[in-house]
Amino acid sequence: MALLRVQNFTVSRDGVAAGHNQSFERPFGDGCDPRELMSWAGATASWPNRTEPGGTRGLDDYFARDFTNNIGAEIMGRNKFGYQRGPWTDEQWQGWWGDEPPFHTPVFVLTHHVRPSFTLSDTTFHFLDATPAEAAEQAKAAAGGKDVRIGGGVTTVREFLDADLIDAMHIAVAPITIGQGLRLWDDPDDLADRFHIEKIPSPSGIVHHLLWRT
Amino acid sequence: MALLRVQNFTVSRDGVAAGHNQSFERPFGDGCDPRELMSWAGATASWPNRTEPGGTRGLDDYFARDFTNNIGAEIMGRNKFGYQRGPWTDEQWQGWWGDEPPFHTPVFVLTHHVRPSFTLSDTTFHFLDATPAEAAEQAKAAAGGKDVRIGGGVTTVREFLDADLIDAMHIAVAPITIGQGLRLWDDPDDLADRFHIEKIPSPSGIVHHLLWRT
Repeated sequence: MALLRVQNFTVSRDGVAAGHNQSFERPFGDGCDPRELMSWAGATASWPNRTEPGGTRGLDDYFARDFTNNIGAEIMGRNKFGYQRGPWTDEQWQGWWGDEPPFHTPVFVLTHHVRPSFTLSDTTFHFLDATPAEAAEQAKAAAGGKDVRIGGGVTTVREFLDADLIDAMHIAVAPITIGQGLRLWDDPDDLADRFHIEKIPSPSGIVHHLLWRT
Repeated sequence: MALLRVQNFTVSRDGVAAGHNQSFERPFGDGCDPRELMSWAGATASWPNRTEPGGTRGLDDYFARDFTNNIGAEIMGRNKFGYQRGPWTDEQWQGWWGDEPPFHTPVFVLTHHVRPSFTLSDTTFHFLDATPAEAAEQAKAAAGGKDVRIGGGVTTVREFLDADLIDAMHIAVAPITIGQGLRLWDDPDDLADRFHIEKIPSPSGIVHHLLWRT
């Protein structure tokens, strides 16, 4: 059965996944350094952006390498795709990831301002003005029987949670406190009515939270 | 870089992976019940032999589903393939797994008594009279750039460890004591001179041991 999954999504100990005031210079917004938040993944052998050999092959690596495992499509919010708001003033913008995006599948970008699809390497970006349920249906059809990753940002994950569309989540909780920002949760146990929850501490200091439907 | 990996190999708390006196009736030998040893994997959603929907999607499931992830070939010892010893008296024997073996790749069976290759579904069994290094070379060539799984039994894993050919291991340590039998190790820390070791307790009672080359 194909699932809607969140994978390798990282929040601070206080549940913050991004700061306010996203910009080109600060893709994760004020007070939120993606290198700090994602350092656990960057240390692993399977980190997709790794350019040098090496890296750890312990617990964190199992999660890092599951990023692409059995994934056939991704859904992301417009603010994961880019920093512009409102009508596109610059359709030259093709995301943050250069010529080789790490997705390798169709990607559906949720936005009220659609624009033509385009392809970079083996990733094709489509733009959808749709509800979470409609987007889930389209992405599942494109995924060829594989799972669909809900890629973020945090607002998009919350929308899919609120619509009760998510089957399983891997949330990495980093040992930092951010304070201000966009919050995934106040407390993961708020989801215990709908999800089984396992909390697995890693030697790196990350606590991997695994949630799946009851 | 393609690796030689051990994946989901399960031993008791005292390091035993199989009993003595393997037979058709007791594939894991005396005193060693595979259902007990492997129950952690059987409970997961991704267990390849699962016939009904359901199953857990927590930590144990991450390991269960990594069984096939990026694996292009398996090497196994003859005693994993079957219970006969010496020259083949029954070449009708095609392994324990029926018409749909869970490997889905070429499998190289190490034996001093070679016999013709055969195919069941998308698994082809080859029989090799070879050293671990020679078998590793052949399996890597067949794996098309993917990793090679050292599938066991325990004697085969030990031979590849002794030849220093293994890059990474996932060993699940089950919360049972067996006593007599074929042992993977007296103590996993005996391998600390060659491997990083992480020990990750799962809510199921299993302790996942992750080892990778220093």
